[in-house]
Amino acid sequence: MTDEQYIKLAHGGGGQLTAELIGQVILPAVGGQDPNALSDAAVLAIDGGGRVAFTTDSYVVQPLEFPGGDIGKLAVCGTVNDLAVVGARPIAISLALVIQEGLRIDLLRRVLVSAGQAARDAGVQIVTGDTKVVQRDACDALMINTSGVGQVADGVALGFGRVGPGDEIVLSGPLGEHALAVMSQRESLSFAADLDSDCASIYPLTAALLEVLGPGVHFMRDPTRGGLAATLAELSSSCGVDIEIDEAAIPVNRTARAAAEMLGLDLLSAANEGKLVAVVEAGRGAAAVDLLAKHEIARHAAVIGRIVAASQTPLVEMVTSVGGRRIVQLPYGEDLPRIC
Amino acid sequence: MTDEQYIKLAHGGGGQLTAELIGQVILPAVGGQDPNALSDAAVLAIDGGGRVAFTTDSYVVQPLEFPGGDIGKLAVCGTVNDLAVVGARPIAISLALVIQEGLRIDLLRRVLVSAGQAARDAGVQIVTGDTKVVQRDACDALMINTSGVGQVADGVALGFGRVGPGDEIVLSGPLGEHALAVMSQRESLSFAADLDSDCASIYPLTAALLEVLGPGVHFMRDPTRGGLAATLAELSSSCGVDIEIDEAAIPVNRTARAAAEMLGLDLLSAANEGKLVAVVEAGRGAAAVDLLAKHEIARHAAVIGRIVAASQTPLVEMVTSVGGRRIVQLPYGEDLPRIC
Repeated sequence: MTDEQYIKLAHGGGGQLTAELIGQVILPAVGGQDPNALSDAAVLAIDGGGRVAFTTDSYVVQPLEFPGGDIGKLAVCGTVNDLAVVGARPIAISLALVIQEGLRIDLLRRVLVSAGQAARDAGVQIVTGDTKVVQRDACDALMINTSGVGQVADGVALGFGRVGPGDEIVLSGPLGEHALAVMSQRESLSFAADLDSDCASIYPLTAALLEVLGPGVHFMRDPTRGGLAATLAELSSSCGVDIEIDEAAIPVNRTARAAAEMLGLDLLSAANEGKLVAVVEAGRGAAAVDLLAKHEIARHAAVIGRIVAASQTPLVEMVTSVGGRRIVQLPYGEDLPRIC
Repeated sequence: MTDEQYIKLAHGGGGQLTAELIGQVILPAVGGQDPNALSDAAVLAIDGGGRVAFTTDSYVVQPLEFPGGDIGKLAVCGTVNDLAVVGARPIAISLALVIQEGLRIDLLRRVLVSAGQAARDAGVQIVTGDTKVVQRDACDALMINTSGVGQVADGVALGFGRVGPGDEIVLSGPLGEHALAVMSQRESLSFAADLDSDCASIYPLTAALLEVLGPGVHFMRDPTRGGLAATLAELSSSCGVDIEIDEAAIPVNRTARAAAEMLGLDLLSAANEGKLVAVVEAGRGAAAVDLLAKHEIARHAAVIGRIVAASQTPLVEMVTSVGGRRIVQLPYGEDLPRIC
């Protein structure tokens, strides 16, 4: 990317353009050595023992309220989930508001009540915050940044380095419910009432897997922007492995699928806010599904694929429902702006 | 504040209206019990020993580049400073960007290079991040949230509860350099070239005080939005003490003073981004000043006042240069929008 270029909306889509912006501009500029330095959550060693996970996310979703959630609940759950997938127990989050002048106090109050409830539900405390107000037209009503700190138990070891051939890939439920709920609300589609965002804390899921399967859990991620496609494409390229998934095994929400078809969107790259992708040791996929399915938000959990082999040209392939094969790529730009 | 009301720019000024918004809307809505729950930085106990400080701040300054700094340097220093004043050694910060489409890559690169340099200068690592892009007019070119984690050494005990009569108040340098540098740039005033923002990490100052004076340091704060006036008014009311400061003792930057007079602003309530207010044990003020003055950014440090007595009606009074007395109040709203 050259200096004469400009930022495009698609740079924020969680796909290839976002990766280029981070890899070619942001990381070199700030001088980060580690290509993962600006990834979902960092794990820090603390003097005196203990490890803490630390993460941040800004939320710019439009509209501020949507079926199944709002920006407050989303901001809390999103950051809790980023901590959960690195194996941490979320303990504290921050709440930084950038508010446009003119925002109605009752709307602000509603999304904050929702944020507070989401924090209590997830067992985290909102411990620090910041409030800025900007002039009309400088910001779109309300943006929220939440950052979070979690505690990583001794013995937890997750990461790309632990993923290898034979590992099974588990998905906790159907794809795209968040993206399509927001999109349906935005477009005033008639099925909007039938589709709720999946926005939820997935900490109970990650905690259950780690408690029972222990080191049998190799990697976890919540497939938000860029969806399952982005998560698997990054996993494949970062680990240098081929991945195969089975379309018929992927849980489906029929309303989300109908909405996606109507809007011309691919469920594989649609954002989720309450789903878990877990890579577990060969032979432990069924056990993981049993554990997950005890939780209401993961009652449709399934083993959807596997790590096939190490590869110099890592690829994600999907065996389609009719037996064909399709390559699953990192989405290029942004199907849906302002989705989270 | 009623539900029918709207957010005003002045709600973001760091004064009385900000306090009302936080106390009457934000904290009750999220269900925070502790009135300090959304204050500058929280200190968390970590299993296995150790305490970490955790803080967040969003930066919406306009213009993005100003004499002596830019939004990148400001965002790093501001969060480092919030950690420093609770007695922590800053170890890691997050960098969350909300970028407007159309932002030039070269401008983005410049402020990020500056952020990276500021992080290295302050001895912290940028360990996690987030990048969102919003459509033109949804956000003012670039907003940055930085959150931070620091380590609090054993034995460090700072807070309102440790402040009492006889304690001395130390200020590390002249007031308002940040606010007036930004304002001069914004208004294209002719003296803009002579005035740089004081934007800097004050961790070397807080570390020096804690190392040498130990428990003789009772409370520290960086007087940002709302300036010295807001810091002292909050200190006075939270501790239930009367405070007296001497105008003649407050270090002065003549250019900042001239700019403030020209713009009709009060230096006492103007924002600073590289200054420290420390409350130290009676008799240790001079020693604190000696320690601070060894650092270039605090070479004009001075004892500017003292805690007079416990009080049912806590008040901050300034003895003016001509011997009069003026009450220093929590600023009401916002002298300067988009200053940090």
